[in-house]
Amino acid sequence: MIIHTIEELREKIKEWKKQNMTVGLVPTMGALHNGHLSLIKKSVEKCDKTVVSVFVNPIQFCPGEDLEKYPRTLEADEKLCSDAGVDIVFAPSPKEMYGEGHILSNDFLTYVIPPFFYTNKLCGKSRVGHFDGVCTVVNKLFNIVQPDFAFFGEKDRQQLIILKKMVKDLNIPVEIIPCPIVREESGLALSSRNKYLSDEDKKYALALSQILFNIKACYNKGITDVKALTETAYSYLNEHHSLEYLEFRDADDLEEKKIADDNTIVFIALKISDVRLIDNIALK
Amino acid sequence: MIIHTIEELREKIKEWKKQNMTVGLVPTMGALHNGHLSLIKKSVEKCDKTVVSVFVNPIQFCPGEDLEKYPRTLEADEKLCSDAGVDIVFAPSPKEMYGEGHILSNDFLTYVIPPFFYTNKLCGKSRVGHFDGVCTVVNKLFNIVQPDFAFFGEKDRQQLIILKKMVKDLNIPVEIIPCPIVREESGLALSSRNKYLSDEDKKYALALSQILFNIKACYNKGITDVKALTETAYSYLNEHHSLEYLEFRDADDLEEKKIADDNTIVFIALKISDVRLIDNIALK
Repeated sequence: MIIHTIEELREKIKEWKKQNMTVGLVPTMGALHNGHLSLIKKSVEKCDKTVVSVFVNPIQFCPGEDLEKYPRTLEADEKLCSDAGVDIVFAPSPKEMYGEGHILSNDFLTYVIPPFFYTNKLCGKSRVGHFDGVCTVVNKLFNIVQPDFAFFGEKDRQQLIILKKMVKDLNIPVEIIPCPIVREESGLALSSRNKYLSDEDKKYALALSQILFNIKACYNKGITDVKALTETAYSYLNEHHSLEYLEFRDADDLEEKKIADDNTIVFIALKISDVRLIDNIALK
Repeated sequence: MIIHTIEELREKIKEWKKQNMTVGLVPTMGALHNGHLSLIKKSVEKCDKTVVSVFVNPIQFCPGEDLEKYPRTLEADEKLCSDAGVDIVFAPSPKEMYGEGHILSNDFLTYVIPPFFYTNKLCGKSRVGHFDGVCTVVNKLFNIVQPDFAFFGEKDRQQLIILKKMVKDLNIPVEIIPCPIVREESGLALSSRNKYLSDEDKKYALALSQILFNIKACYNKGITDVKALTETAYSYLNEHHSLEYLEFRDADDLEEKKIADDNTIVFIALKISDVRLIDNIALK
């Protein structure tokens, strides 16, 4: 069942809460793939009722990013959700979420701003304001749906860490459930942006997971020096790759690591033919 | 009953919610006076259960402000609350609210930031960051208590307007109930900061309400030109007053008014012997 308005959704949720049902929320921007499906399945399994939100959130796109051309496939998304046992697909318009009559800026909108120490690195460095938009919309969705559990993929690991921090800092009564990255057989992490890749680009895109798997293998063999581990990456890169970052950071607070340990995440971002791809791996 | 920890409070609230009771929240910084009492009475009357929070919120004080010397009178506050039929006084420590181990800044804490257009004027101009601290702590209290209704005084009218905006922008499922200013017979608006005033200062402090009452009387006689209305104020001021602002603004979005109308609020702030006092009046 698809719902477009906040009011209608709230009424449904109210009914469920009255019956003491638990509610799971899977926030998405649509263009659903098997990665999303794994989150959805987890929610359907764990919760009495599951809401999947499908909303391409304008305020988390930075100037020059792909807001207009971001894939929108609502009909297919709805089908995937109903096949998976989702109770409600919540697909509001930008107007429903942010009103109209003024520009979407912090001049006229209340924002939820995650801490600078968490956002001034990795993806936050090139996507200034991105995580402000993410936290604001997720906060709104939490207030609208009032879920018991919310499901986020480890693919966007920095986002996951920032949202966990938001929940803790603002005492939000929601438990965040992290879900493992889903990969193609080749190793490529699923992403809605993979649709932008040509067949040839997709081959180059394997470098991300190969670099991460190789680093993990080296770590498992006992190499912990981050400099040495980083150097293992370069043989996978060629002129088709524009590396943005390859960094070793703490799984909880994103502090930089000089020596890798079991609480380390390796983060990578690179561009292929102007398509920006990210991936990460936990060394534990 | 006084509760100091979030966990203990949550358990109580959970019990109430299970019994479908409505919950009212009156957020305060303590040093309770009859102004607070009027909010508390309204909540006790309207809601099945009432929580009064007493927390001197460090992050809403600006550098150089009175955080250390802000009056703390928890025992008296508790007495006032229990006499008024309050169910729980929630008095957490700063550590309970913000954790410890790092400074309370947006480097390490998630903040809720109200729109710049609402905070770059009136009290926000001299108290930079104040409303960020207010919105953040109120957001936290809303998440902890999950009240159906929250009661705020019109004394802090800019704060009230900003909090209503926060609730709307973030879709927070709480209804904000504004409560009229309580005044001494002299006209002086009640404030915890009145404790800082000497008897002589208190006489000078009457200028605030006198100016506002006189402006309203002039408006009721048909004067709507803001310049003319503003000029009526000066005869009430002398060398003991340091006027910070006297402004006419929209009751919903704080837009400046050149011509007063029924949706206009007149705001005033001035200092007497270094004590900063504020007051306001709705022209309707």
